[in-house]
Amino acid sequence: METGRSGRAPRPQTRARREEILKAAVATFGAKGYHKGSLTEIADQVGMTHAGILHHFGSKDALLMEVLEYRDRSDVADLPDHHIPGGAELFRHLVRTAFLNAQRAGIVQAFVVLSAESVTDDHPARAFFESRYATLRGEVARAFRVMCQEQGINEPDTIDKAAASILAVMDGLQVQWLLDPAAVDLAEASEFAIEAIVAQVLSPRELPLGRA
Amino acid sequence: METGRSGRAPRPQTRARREEILKAAVATFGAKGYHKGSLTEIADQVGMTHAGILHHFGSKDALLMEVLEYRDRSDVADLPDHHIPGGAELFRHLVRTAFLNAQRAGIVQAFVVLSAESVTDDHPARAFFESRYATLRGEVARAFRVMCQEQGINEPDTIDKAAASILAVMDGLQVQWLLDPAAVDLAEASEFAIEAIVAQVLSPRELPLGRA
Repeated sequence: METGRSGRAPRPQTRARREEILKAAVATFGAKGYHKGSLTEIADQVGMTHAGILHHFGSKDALLMEVLEYRDRSDVADLPDHHIPGGAELFRHLVRTAFLNAQRAGIVQAFVVLSAESVTDDHPARAFFESRYATLRGEVARAFRVMCQEQGINEPDTIDKAAASILAVMDGLQVQWLLDPAAVDLAEASEFAIEAIVAQVLSPRELPLGRA
Repeated sequence: METGRSGRAPRPQTRARREEILKAAVATFGAKGYHKGSLTEIADQVGMTHAGILHHFGSKDALLMEVLEYRDRSDVADLPDHHIPGGAELFRHLVRTAFLNAQRAGIVQAFVVLSAESVTDDHPARAFFESRYATLRGEVARAFRVMCQEQGINEPDTIDKAAASILAVMDGLQVQWLLDPAAVDLAEASEFAIEAIVAQVLSPRELPLGRA
């Protein structure tokens, strides 16, 4: 069985077929969620049978994992050597990602739906998202530390909170934008918020609100 | 049939029963999502039948709407006269809400799961979330305008982006916190991000990233 994890490179025809199935799975899981989106529906979209999908991916869970990795691959596809940048360049990359996301509602919706669904009981994507956020928070925190060092700033104790917040605001804006794209500018709002958070880490200001 | 929307105040016994069902529904929709969470499961939790739940709420959709309104009621329960505050006090209220949310994972999870599920095809909560976010963005934007006026600041064109971002960061942090509560401090990170965004609206700084 061709599972894509065997280590052997699939033939070009197989690769094209798998890509087609992945795109249909992104659309279906985005439109219905994982539990409600069925393999039969995905198969119908690409003119295959349920068994045909299983031939390519092994199981519905395995297809889900490939969908999640597919999006992560497309996120780094535009980076030199597919390498996550550090320091200020990472934040520029995140802003560019937000601009890119504003052009691909389908894959954004799949991620919004699947990440939230992953907190429900025994969800097969839970470990993926837990580990993905931990990795991303680590990368953002590292970029903050590099910027602090470059600018001769003592590392503030806000770095971990800021790292989580940057990912959070990008995610949260996606939900509002999917619900009402005319009211929320995903790209511009993400850029504003990322810059606000970076500014507060690098040169914290007296807080205008007082302690809650 | 007692639907809770008839305008008549329910008897105390009925009210207690409805409250019990609502709590079970919050737990079930949070654990499973709306589509996968069943009325039978909710009924089992409170020792009733499926028909008994329908007697109190009319339909699964109607129960969902009451769950959503239940959470909003509990959010304003601690406010004087149950009135949403304006100006800086609104932001303090949002910070307090984040601290409160860190003590009630169940209702937070229900909101995270249902808000994301609401962007899927024909979801019964879609209109609720679309309208809820529009209302909240409007309230946050109004608070920003009041603060700008009080401080003699020209209203910056960042207010709408900032309003969406404040709600977004609170939501996004909830997902990360539910996945890994030891790694993400929901309350402290929300406070940091809200203050960063407010600071950037009231006294914008030169942006450290440059245009993407």
